Amino acid sequence: MTASQETASTSAAGASAAATPEGILQLGLGFWGSKTLLSAVELGVFSELADGPLHGEELAARIGLHPRAWPDFLDALLALGMLTREDGAYGNTPETAVFLDRAKPSYIGGMLEMANARLYPFWGSLTEALRSGSPQNEAKHGGDFFRELYRDGDRLKQFLHAMTGLSMGAHKAIAAKFPWERYDTFVDVGCAEGGLPVELALTHKHLTGVGFDLAPSGRHFDEYVRAFGLEQRLHFQPGDFFVDPLPHADVIVLGHILHDWNLSEKQTLVAKAHEALPDGGALIVFDAIIDNERRRNAFGLLMSLNMLIETPGGSDYTGADCQDWMRAIGFRDTYVEHLAGPDSMVAAIK
Amino acid sequence: MTASQETASTSAAGASAAATPEGILQLGLGFWGSKTLLSAVELGVFSELADGPLHGEELAARIGLHPRAWPDFLDALLALGMLTREDGAYGNTPETAVFLDRAKPSYIGGMLEMANARLYPFWGSLTEALRSGSPQNEAKHGGDFFRELYRDGDRLKQFLHAMTGLSMGAHKAIAAKFPWERYDTFVDVGCAEGGLPVELALTHKHLTGVGFDLAPSGRHFDEYVRAFGLEQRLHFQPGDFFVDPLPHADVIVLGHILHDWNLSEKQTLVAKAHEALPDGGALIVFDAIIDNERRRNAFGLLMSLNMLIETPGGSDYTGADCQDWMRAIGFRDTYVEHLAGPDSMVAAIK
Repeated sequence: MTASQETASTSAAGASAAATPEGILQLGLGFWGSKTLLSAVELGVFSELADGPLHGEELAARIGLHPRAWPDFLDALLALGMLTREDGAYGNTPETAVFLDRAKPSYIGGMLEMANARLYPFWGSLTEALRSGSPQNEAKHGGDFFRELYRDGDRLKQFLHAMTGLSMGAHKAIAAKFPWERYDTFVDVGCAEGGLPVELALTHKHLTGVGFDLAPSGRHFDEYVRAFGLEQRLHFQPGDFFVDPLPHADVIVLGHILHDWNLSEKQTLVAKAHEALPDGGALIVFDAIIDNERRRNAFGLLMSLNMLIETPGGSDYTGADCQDWMRAIGFRDTYVEHLAGPDSMVAAIK
Repeated sequence: MTASQETASTSAAGASAAATPEGILQLGLGFWGSKTLLSAVELGVFSELADGPLHGEELAARIGLHPRAWPDFLDALLALGMLTREDGAYGNTPETAVFLDRAKPSYIGGMLEMANARLYPFWGSLTEALRSGSPQNEAKHGGDFFRELYRDGDRLKQFLHAMTGLSMGAHKAIAAKFPWERYDTFVDVGCAEGGLPVELALTHKHLTGVGFDLAPSGRHFDEYVRAFGLEQRLHFQPGDFFVDPLPHADVIVLGHILHDWNLSEKQTLVAKAHEALPDGGALIVFDAIIDNERRRNAFGLLMSLNMLIETPGGSDYTGADCQDWMRAIGFRDTYVEHLAGPDSMVAAIK
């Protein structure tokens, strides 16, 4: 027995009196609670409660739940902190009222609808992904989720809108934390419907910006921007960020973009941003940035496994990784700053 | 707008400044971390580390992980608290060393292997279960998991052993908390390989007991009991608890049994226990008993949804429900007591 073996077996024996399996079982069976919320979003539970609490039987009748199933389902959502219950009437929590009512602009359920319909079954093949290093989504059978998505106007609109809701916390934090008073123009690369451009334009009246994305996003961007009356200060420019040069501006933002791509593609995008900036211009990258020690941000590490499931070469990365790519191409004064939830930004000056 | 509508929209608006979507996203995407642990158990990560920590590359080579995948996978397990890491070498935590090493009797991974192979995909059809009230397991296509299981000796042994590991906390608590000094004999109905009988016989030297289960469990019971040298005090009696009368004893235990069955089947089993007990004899029921308010024990409520996925009529229940069934058939002095993790017992005197 080696010294390390001895240490391991001693500590295991010493712990066996105190160790309990609860944490392991809670995590291992955690998909039960997760899928319960995803089904609730799919069934529209929270949208149905937008006008006020409903008795269980009434709610079950409206969304078509079986009498055997609804009491456990709704009480499980209660115990998980996703519903309230008073005198048999179920209602939204402050959070589900804001974020899971389809009629509200703050709805983030689109992301969860996608997770329910696609990611949950694809993650069922995680073991295969870990062995093969290959995606387990539509690509496995020759499909291409994003190509299909960009062909279907309604689905694309819903998807882009889901991304807006999902990134709203990060957008507000970027508007608040970055020294925008030093700059006049920005480009949001991969802008979707324009959640970040709108947030920046609303918060900083002197800014004008460009949203850069594939052409089909254009009409959704224009519609969203017009809804805020910002069409004089925000414009859409269609393009493919691997084919076309990036538009010039004082600040370039790459939000939830780099993690979709492999290392050399990431470096290419950072280099193209460098090319498009003037001296003194800034690059802002944001994602679920992993802590440099790769010990704490479980969500960032799991998001990276999600990129394994979804893409041929994508992965999430630490702030230090991103700072290295930036410095290698000539950026200076790089820093990492937490935004909201699992998201952080990495900023740099040319 | 009604008063309740006004309250709802006021509270939603008032909360929108403070509410964050983090809790919703963490729960909705919680299946990522859950499936990561399940794949780790499937791949034997924790058993491979039983002799001591291994460098990531070595561990990945041993269990066949792709170079693209293993760093995120192992660091995600670290961030989830399921591994340690020092100088690039990954090791078990005190808990994973005890409960997820296949070679240890305390292994509970059998339950998680089953969850990975069966429950994860079946829970993908939760929405259908909620609408139809019907099981979503092998039964959906005419299969019968338990019948197949009891036909296959090796699989049955592994399954029964998984149940022992899973219930060990509850078994120890029952041995400690129930007044066994007042009784001499017991029957464990649905005893599997005899985890509870062995625990009771080891803790209370005056007790003799019977394990009652379907005949194929017999040789696994005998083997397990012999391993503890308890074959003089513990015996197996084959039988079907819906067809045959229950064996007589001072105490009858129904552990993780009632939740598999519908209301009238539950009541039948409680009545058969009453019949088999002498005056003054005791019935102990244990399960992931739901709190009477059905507000707090999320695991118990989700376990009940698991019974929706797995059985035609099963469901979990509150302590008050169980006390009602007991009193209705003539039991007295019923009480509910927490055991370990999500499990509680309901005890009663004839």
